[in-house]
Amino acid sequence: MRDLRPLLAPTSIAIVGASSRLNTVAARPLENLQMMEYGGALYPINPTAQEIAGIRCYPNLEELPEVPELALLVLPAQHVLPTLESCAQRGVKAAIVISAGFAETGSEGAQAQVKIREVAQRSGMVICGPNSLGVLNFVDRIPMTFGSVADMKDWPGGRVSLVSQSGGLLVGLANRAFDAGVNINYAVATGNEADLKLSETIHYLAEDPGTDVIVVIIEAIRNGPRFLSVCDRLLELGKPLIAYKLARSEKGKAAAQSHTGALAGSYPVLQAVFRQRGVIEAGDLDDLFALAGACAAGRFPTGPGFGVITESGGAGAITADRADDLGLTTATIGKDTAERLKEFVPQFAPEQVTNPFDVTSIIAQNPASVGSMAEAFFDDPAVGGLMVITAGSGEPGKARMQALLDPIQASKKPAFGVVLAGSSATPSYQLLRSNNIPAFHSPGKAVESMAALWHFARARERHKARCQSQEKTAASAANVKEALAGIGSAPTEYDAKRFLKQCGLLVVEERLAQSADQAVDHAKTLGYPVALKVQSPDIIHKTEVGGIRLNLDNAQAIETAYEEIMTGAKKAVPQANIAGMLVSRMVSTPLEFVAGIQVDPTFGPLILFGLGGIWVEVFDEAAMCPAPLIPDDVLEMVNQLRGAALLKGARNMPAVRPEEIQKLLLTLSEIALASQGLLSGIDINPLVPTEDGRLMALDASLFLSRDNS
Amino acid sequence: MRDLRPLLAPTSIAIVGASSRLNTVAARPLENLQMMEYGGALYPINPTAQEIAGIRCYPNLEELPEVPELALLVLPAQHVLPTLESCAQRGVKAAIVISAGFAETGSEGAQAQVKIREVAQRSGMVICGPNSLGVLNFVDRIPMTFGSVADMKDWPGGRVSLVSQSGGLLVGLANRAFDAGVNINYAVATGNEADLKLSETIHYLAEDPGTDVIVVIIEAIRNGPRFLSVCDRLLELGKPLIAYKLARSEKGKAAAQSHTGALAGSYPVLQAVFRQRGVIEAGDLDDLFALAGACAAGRFPTGPGFGVITESGGAGAITADRADDLGLTTATIGKDTAERLKEFVPQFAPEQVTNPFDVTSIIAQNPASVGSMAEAFFDDPAVGGLMVITAGSGEPGKARMQALLDPIQASKKPAFGVVLAGSSATPSYQLLRSNNIPAFHSPGKAVESMAALWHFARARERHKARCQSQEKTAASAANVKEALAGIGSAPTEYDAKRFLKQCGLLVVEERLAQSADQAVDHAKTLGYPVALKVQSPDIIHKTEVGGIRLNLDNAQAIETAYEEIMTGAKKAVPQANIAGMLVSRMVSTPLEFVAGIQVDPTFGPLILFGLGGIWVEVFDEAAMCPAPLIPDDVLEMVNQLRGAALLKGARNMPAVRPEEIQKLLLTLSEIALASQGLLSGIDINPLVPTEDGRLMALDASLFLSRDNS
Repeated sequence: MRDLRPLLAPTSIAIVGASSRLNTVAARPLENLQMMEYGGALYPINPTAQEIAGIRCYPNLEELPEVPELALLVLPAQHVLPTLESCAQRGVKAAIVISAGFAETGSEGAQAQVKIREVAQRSGMVICGPNSLGVLNFVDRIPMTFGSVADMKDWPGGRVSLVSQSGGLLVGLANRAFDAGVNINYAVATGNEADLKLSETIHYLAEDPGTDVIVVIIEAIRNGPRFLSVCDRLLELGKPLIAYKLARSEKGKAAAQSHTGALAGSYPVLQAVFRQRGVIEAGDLDDLFALAGACAAGRFPTGPGFGVITESGGAGAITADRADDLGLTTATIGKDTAERLKEFVPQFAPEQVTNPFDVTSIIAQNPASVGSMAEAFFDDPAVGGLMVITAGSGEPGKARMQALLDPIQASKKPAFGVVLAGSSATPSYQLLRSNNIPAFHSPGKAVESMAALWHFARARERHKARCQSQEKTAASAANVKEALAGIGSAPTEYDAKRFLKQCGLLVVEERLAQSADQAVDHAKTLGYPVALKVQSPDIIHKTEVGGIRLNLDNAQAIETAYEEIMTGAKKAVPQANIAGMLVSRMVSTPLEFVAGIQVDPTFGPLILFGLGGIWVEVFDEAAMCPAPLIPDDVLEMVNQLRGAALLKGARNMPAVRPEEIQKLLLTLSEIALASQGLLSGIDINPLVPTEDGRLMALDASLFLSRDNS
Repeated sequence: MRDLRPLLAPTSIAIVGASSRLNTVAARPLENLQMMEYGGALYPINPTAQEIAGIRCYPNLEELPEVPELALLVLPAQHVLPTLESCAQRGVKAAIVISAGFAETGSEGAQAQVKIREVAQRSGMVICGPNSLGVLNFVDRIPMTFGSVADMKDWPGGRVSLVSQSGGLLVGLANRAFDAGVNINYAVATGNEADLKLSETIHYLAEDPGTDVIVVIIEAIRNGPRFLSVCDRLLELGKPLIAYKLARSEKGKAAAQSHTGALAGSYPVLQAVFRQRGVIEAGDLDDLFALAGACAAGRFPTGPGFGVITESGGAGAITADRADDLGLTTATIGKDTAERLKEFVPQFAPEQVTNPFDVTSIIAQNPASVGSMAEAFFDDPAVGGLMVITAGSGEPGKARMQALLDPIQASKKPAFGVVLAGSSATPSYQLLRSNNIPAFHSPGKAVESMAALWHFARARERHKARCQSQEKTAASAANVKEALAGIGSAPTEYDAKRFLKQCGLLVVEERLAQSADQAVDHAKTLGYPVALKVQSPDIIHKTEVGGIRLNLDNAQAIETAYEEIMTGAKKAVPQANIAGMLVSRMVSTPLEFVAGIQVDPTFGPLILFGLGGIWVEVFDEAAMCPAPLIPDDVLEMVNQLRGAALLKGARNMPAVRPEEIQKLLLTLSEIALASQGLLSGIDINPLVPTEDGRLMALDASLFLSRDNS
């Protein structure tokens, strides 16, 4: 891992292309650094000026009295490359290229950008940008940016890092973090990422002892494997990564491409990565720092159930609603807890002592009682975390929160303060924040944050399990490679299913026939009715050439169908090389599934599983998960399907045994890993449940990588 | 409609049960009214005190020097009813019952509540509560509540009303409205709604010339028809209603019931009402006042496309993403517009002049240019509204927004300012707010508000069409009643389909057989294969008694099946009265739909349409819409289905003609209206597409109202 310290906290800075014209991109960085009283050496470089803003100006890098640690480039695009080469020669450790006019402008700019990367690779210099808004260091108070940071002096440094591929959002978000009581250490705009990528930046910050939480704005992940390994490292370190993804839609992608030249990949694939690796996805920019504040408290739920003490019954109902949406629950409290709580509400019937615990008038008359209530909740093993909701105005509101401080201190469970009032509850907010207790206005948003913490906690457990996983499947790597070796360059359906069978998966009983007579013989062996399907590497869409006949229930029907299929296929694709006719036992089922392997250009192989037939197309119901899978991933995938209930045997259909789903998907995972570079995908569609609860492939396609075909 | 002025702005107030013990529910209302220097007469009533807080106290209502306009009750529950009776006798016009201990505590409390309603009905007195937090009037500055309103003096009165069934949220929300620059006129907590209901309150405010927008927190709608007619009235008046629904989930409903005794109805039904009637639903409490602010500007989009001028390319991409989610679009700008915009970005290629219009450096160097850009966008007919996104810090940020004021003034289209920075952009915010221009921090939230305005605008158009609608369907009211009259008290499947046929709908060809021989005859007429289905009012689930046989393709098979079904049915339900055996032509289709009528206890009949088979159960894909429907409602229902594409003929299946879907659903709507009180539901499942693009009922059930059966 490269050392980014010279980029984030340079001891000396040269500003190449510095200008004295106020309010220009070229003038601002120096103004900002002077305003923040940067303590290191500052070298404006401009061949036509003697002095800028009272500081001596140099004509070029060569004439500086020392080699600056960082060069900040605010030059026109055509001067960027020679300047970087000169920086590299002189031994400058890091550069920020603010200049735009590269990949975002088209192919010529993209080529220039490749050369920037080459300079970095040759020299080891860290280059941030081009088209970067810059880097802000709030701990050492170094604003290396042309962004407007007039208020930066008021913003204390903290332990949350902000990395954005969109520079325009950077300063605004840093300000909003401050407003939300979340203090930033570094804010980095990676721009077009010629050299320094989002993943490397996150990786450095992950290892940085001054960083607890990382917030990222993602346009496109350029290095998938590195992003995956960084996510794993964050799980090991217990540092949450919070992400907002922009350029999700086609129009959004187009906007992003003209912005930083980024080719935004598949959003559903990225979401699958987030789910597996515990990345917390913010639904809106507005949510980023509520989530960051919740994470910064460093506490994670011990279970999906949480406790609610509320001064508003309505707010309590909201927590229950949102918990239901997000896979959490308002915990069913134990008998002991109910008895302890009953003391505070003698007028309640025992069955009225429930969670959410609605205590409007009690809290009003005795604010301190909320502390003892909290203790009762914390002691309950069914309670994984706690929310205390108050109306919150002024000093009375603060008194309620004051009573919570000791019990929260004594517990390790996450505890949130929800204060329904806004500005009039400032005393409550300040008290909560100064004690590092996450504070919210909205009960719904508090539940979203609790769900995010739980998502991260579970992903950490899964990561541990993944590291220890020694799952064996029928498909060893050697097996898979051997099975693949026997397949020609254009595998037919028959080849695909033979391959799957060799890898240990269940496929429908079938035989390849070379003549109508042989087809009839096979049908007798398999049992009527059967299906006939033409097999040819040259015919991909069999239905379109009339190449499939179903439900043939006697010899005559088979013979007729055989001839008709052959005639039709030869007419439609005269040069087709026909390997024969597949005779398969007919299996009818109202319920179809699909499974497969999809190789994403960024993240590599993902395993798919979902409902089949037309429904997968219309409802987009397939769950995806990056390989390798562990059993817990399979559980997550199944739970993610809205149709999961169908697997348990809806409408008198056979139930599928969970261990069979697991076997199927783990085998596909094994195949995906063993065949990397050889296979570009597998599509099993449909898969049908058998009477004994297994999943059987009725049809399958195998796609070889172009490099190898 | 009753006059709520005495409740909202009373000229004199008696506080019955007033106390001098600080920080109690009984002391607070007087403290609040004194703090706000209430100008009317104030009468504390307490038999044991001479004076409270310097004001003369009276032992009872009878001894007051005048009849107060409003009585505020802070008495123990058992004293409430006699006090209200005494108020009614004396001619008090309105009462707020803050006292709790009614329906929320169980059946005894619910009975006491019925008596409160009776007092109101007998006397005409308006009673708000019991279990109400009270009423706050920000225009005349009258806080009739025990809530803590210490900061109320700082909150200016406005034109947005707030009505909440949850009192605990009321004051906090009013404070947050103020923080968001949205000024409230009245805030009403309706509590348990013994007399005054949410719908009546909204109705009064709808007609109030001082109210432009209404924000409601809903636990349960108690009077569905009135709510529907109030929504219509708001559409006529052009006053948006913004709602947050709590108690959506089962746990949330349980929490609400112990809170205000409300039985929260079906959330999906309420959402169907919101969709049809243009009610704007907030996803979170946090979103309420962003939406209210957007509505308060009183401008509505002229189309689903909007323009974006943005200083951040990333923020532009976000608007495109969210537009895609919400059925809006970043407008495709016209050639003229592009040419006008090109002047500002001479370095751009013509194809780079797109919307979102990313103008980072131009705006920085020439803030005023944003005004001329806005004019170009406003002039484009494809642009229904405009968003201008800036980084926003300090005075430079304000300068960009200043340039927008005149162009916005000159246009009637909605225009939003999106300022990415937080507190450091206060000057921009203040400028926008003081000019009644909706302001946002988050581009995503701005798009949500634009979508809300568009939703309301479209609902207004639909409402106009509904008022003018003279749609004729095959099912006139007389027809429907005649068809219903011929049906016995326990209609079979055969009865249900005959009824539908009489109403003009297409049902599968079928005959009722009384013997195996007759069944064979019918099969010959209909054509093989056929299905046999036992018909008995005593057998509801035919499959469970083996009462259905499919795909019978010869006489022998029919005879055997007939006997087996009869034997099985008689064995399973010995006393069953068997009307015969339905012989239906077999129709096989991979695609099934469902349609029907569901009578909701709150809102009356709704029309359903969706995908059939197991999918409707698992995916919950049916769209609902309250009857009566107009053609636009049908379009909305179809668009709402994720599987809408299937209706256009997926996978070589016949496409369904839009006019046939319309005919089906409008006929069901006609049936629903003509059969009110007689039918409690119709379930057509499955409906299958025919070769000529119609929808044919294969099975149907008719449910009669219990009152009539």
